[in-house]
Parts: sequence; structure tokens; C-alpha cells
Amino acid sequence: MNNPTAGIIIIGNEILSGRTQDANVQFLGNRLSFLGVVVREARIIPDIEEVIIETVRSFSSQYSCVFTTGGIGATHDDITAACIAKSFDKKLVENPQALALLQEYYQEQMNEARRRLALFPEGAELVENSLSFAPGFKIENVFCFAGIPSVMQAMFEGAIPHIPKGKPILQKTITCTLAENIFADELALIQQNNLDIEIGSYPFYTTRTTFGVSLVMRGIDEAKLENVAEQISQMILSHGGNPVYE
Amino acid sequence: MNNPTAGIIIIGNEILSGRTQDANVQFLGNRLSFLGVVVREARIIPDIEEVIIETVRSFSSQYSCVFTTGGIGATHDDITAACIAKSFDKKLVENPQALALLQEYYQEQMNEARRRLALFPEGAELVENSLSFAPGFKIENVFCFAGIPSVMQAMFEGAIPHIPKGKPILQKTITCTLAENIFADELALIQQNNLDIEIGSYPFYTTRTTFGVSLVMRGIDEAKLENVAEQISQMILSHGGNPVYE
Repeated sequence: MNNPTAGIIIIGNEILSGRTQDANVQFLGNRLSFLGVVVREARIIPDIEEVIIETVRSFSSQYSCVFTTGGIGATHDDITAACIAKSFDKKLVENPQALALLQEYYQEQMNEARRRLALFPEGAELVENSLSFAPGFKIENVFCFAGIPSVMQAMFEGAIPHIPKGKPILQKTITCTLAENIFADELALIQQNNLDIEIGSYPFYTTRTTFGVSLVMRGIDEAKLENVAEQISQMILSHGGNPVYE
Repeated sequence: MNNPTAGIIIIGNEILSGRTQDANVQFLGNRLSFLGVVVREARIIPDIEEVIIETVRSFSSQYSCVFTTGGIGATHDDITAACIAKSFDKKLVENPQALALLQEYYQEQMNEARRRLALFPEGAELVENSLSFAPGFKIENVFCFAGIPSVMQAMFEGAIPHIPKGKPILQKTITCTLAENIFADELALIQQNNLDIEIGSYPFYTTRTTFGVSLVMRGIDEAKLENVAEQISQMILSHGGNPVYE
């Protein structure tokens, strides 16, 4: 696959402490698959300047595009914009377009903290936010979104035109109530003979004695995907199982 | 805080592709906080040998303890044990204790794939799994758990005696329906004057016009935590808000 690649950086102590369940990796993983972008890595990092700067630099040089979520706002723990400016040796400057949006929204309730929401790295482009007006931004190949899932999702929609695209990554899932290790070696052979299709085997338990496995196939070639699905289906049938397409 | 530190490595293409919502970071974050362990970083990485080896080495040298989830099993995509052996330049060997467990469980249904579940890095200690018998393992400061949340949680319980402990990290949350940026500067001052307590400000929206903010305080000193909570409470009251302790 020559698809573009992505790295995701989730910035936030609240995710690492367990206070908040992250929902942004899954959203981005799903949506980027549709756009044909392969997510190579996601890192959840704390609100620490050096860690953010270093991670952004490393991801920006490794992946076609980078998405950060979290740390956009006006409180002391919102340091993403300042850190990203430093990652690219840029100044943090007031963006006139963002300031106009903020002034229109806050009117006479504008204050110093709110005015800081207009600070972005020099040269950054704003990313539209249809939900709560305060924009995200893009600089070089890094997209910076809010942490709140609904706002992040609105920003993602605004960013789509600027995200590199590849052939959509297609996915098929076949589930059965067999134990994966009764056909592990046959499955390994199917994988070996079909390297263009990534096959994952994900066992699950519904109770201690009720279990099964979901076999997930991913790739960009629909015919090959169909063919592997058929082989897996036959394998399950040959073990007396019932393959169910999700 | 001189508490021990931890890094979490989530191994699995299915999390990066968005197919599966990770639940292990939140569980580990919460439970490790109670044990007084600070989670410094979590990485979600694909099932790629070199990436796993490199990440485990880097985490093992940086943090007091490391937790991996996923890739334990008998199918072709379960490469965690083999990779971790390589991370520590160990051979992958059959563990007699694990083999005995497997033979007892599978009896005449034992096969080659199931026998591979007894392979662990040389010198690894088994971690009990009260839920589904197949054990996790620990080598050096790295704990390797299954990816399925219920199984991972059972393994975590089994590992507790071997996890380094610190003073429990206490947490308080105060929520109000004010916008965070009306008191951002006062809050920054409270943070500056109380560096032992980490203060996070997490706005939320319930609808487009109904919003609020949760102020989360974390630290190991209960009296200082109480004191900061009181200051934040007063700050909210002074702006006409109603501080609600979660």
C-alpha cells in the first residue's frame, strides 16, 4: 500500500490518569481509513512542553500527516498552540481572522483569556469549527484539533479538504463462535499467501464459557478482499463453524 | 512527587484502524493512580516486530514499570511474547508451568497452536489469569497482558503484588456551568501557587448552548488538595457559579 500515513497525538493528563476515556483515536482511525490514510501510531502524552514539542517534530517528519487533539483553550493547561509554534521554530501570533470571529462571538464579554484563543503559530491556517466557532489550525503537515470529541469531529470535517488521500482502506469482518486456536495454522497460511490483505484475529468472550473470534480483513483491493473472505469462510465451515459477516 | 512511573503500550492494528475502542488505557490509568504510579505516556502501536521491540526497550529504560496489552495468543498476529524476548535478547522458551496449565485445560484437544501459548521469554515469570487460565507474564520491569479488557483486568489483579507502589494519587473534581475562560487567569494563579497539585480544566458541552467545565485536582497530599479545592470553589462562587463536587 502506498497510501499516505498518519500519526495521532492525544495531548492530555486526563486521559493518562484514567479520568477521561479517549474517543478521538477511534474516530480518527475510522475516518482516516475511509480517506485511505493509514494510521501508524497514536501517542497519549501529558501536558508537558518538551514532550509535546519533541513528539510533534518526530511525527511530522515520519508521517504524511499528524493530528493532535487537546490543549486548545484559554486556561493554563492549554499549551498546544504555543508548543507547536516552538516545534516549528515559529512565533505565536494573533491571527486577525480568528480575532474577528472571537470578537463577533463574545462582543462585550471579550476578556484577556478569550483573546488568547486567537493566538496561533505564525503561518498557521485556521481549520473551521462549525460547532463552537473557535477554530483549530494546521501548520506544515500537522492538524491541531480540540480534545472534546464533538468539537474535534467538527474540526475534522473542516480539515478534510486539506488531508492527503489514498485508496480507501476496505474492511470485512467474519465472526464465528469457534476458538481461534483450532485454526490458527490454517489462518497463518491464508495470511502468508495474501500479503496485500491484513488479517487480524480478535477473540472475544461474552461469558466465561461463551466465546468466539472476529476475523478482520483490511486492504485496498476489493477483489482480493472478497477472495480472502471466501477462504476464511470455507476454513470456518470446515471446522463445523458458522461464519457470520458483520 | 517521587512516585514510580509507568508507560503503557497498546499493541494492536485494530485500535489504530478504529475497529476497536481501546478500554485498557483508562482502566490502567485509574488503577495505577490508586497504587501511586504515575502514567507518563501511552502508545498505541501496530503489530510490527521492530516497532514493538524498540518501544518496549525505550519504555523499559525510561519508566519504573511498563504494561503491554494485546498480541498474546496463538494466531499469526500474536507476536508480543516473541518481540519482548527479542527486546531483552532472550530466547522464547516453553514454560513448564504454563504448559501444565494448558494441558490440564485442553486435555485431548491440545494442538500445536495451543502449545505455543506456553512460549515465553526465558526467565519470564507468569502472571496469574483468574478468568481464562492462559497466563500473562512479566520480564524485567515489563508486564505483558492480553488485549481483551476482561482478561487484561484479571491479569492486572494477578500482577498487583509485583507492581511498584507509591503514595496514592488523590483526585477531586469540581464542576460548574460557567465558561472556563471567565476565570482562566485566576485559575492559572491558583495553579502557580500550588505546584504540588496538578489542576486540569476540562470544558464540556451537553448541547450547543449548555456547557460547563470540570476542574480536576490531583496530588498525593490530602490537605493541600482540600485547600486548592476550597480556593477553586470560592473562585467559582465569586463569578456567580455553583461549584458541585463530583
